[in-house]
Amino acid sequence: MGWTQILGLVAGACTTAAVIPQIWKAWKTKEVDDVSPGMYYVLITGLALWTVYGFIKSDIPIIATNGLAFLLNIFMLYLFFRYREKE
Amino acid sequence: MGWTQILGLVAGACTTAAVIPQIWKAWKTKEVDDVSPGMYYVLITGLALWTVYGFIKSDIPIIATNGLAFLLNIFMLYLFFRYREKE
Repeated sequence: MGWTQILGLVAGACTTAAVIPQIWKAWKTKEVDDVSPGMYYVLITGLALWTVYGFIKSDIPIIATNGLAFLLNIFMLYLFFRYREKE
Repeated sequence: MGWTQILGLVAGACTTAAVIPQIWKAWKTKEVDDVSPGMYYVLITGLALWTVYGFIKSDIPIIATNGLAFLLNIFMLYLFFRYREKE
């Protein structure tokens, strides 16, 4: 495996795992009022489309990274609705 | 341009633009206490690495989408430090 591929894998690991600190913070504090659900709607839509794109192209890394990121961000959106202040 | 390429462009537009609703919410409310800075550290690192990866591969779409997302997320992190409650 070349350096460029390793760079791509590290980049993909970062962008996939990025939401984990936000999940952790929401889980720990049970406070999500300053979090934008709109961000997660747009992001989840994009990640779902990337996953479909990966299937069409039979590209396992695209399917795996975006599929996992999709699930993590769905979970974050679930925490948003669980903990948001009721109006 | 085929349907697969259009799908990739729409997917890329979504994942690039996703942070805009969060920027808008932080800007409007000046409240960011529930936002995780760790998410932005990891995300910005990943987007920077993707942009470098794009340069190595001479791949304009990777450079453009990740470069723009990098700048947008840097701006969101700036808003975080501007509006967070001082301890």
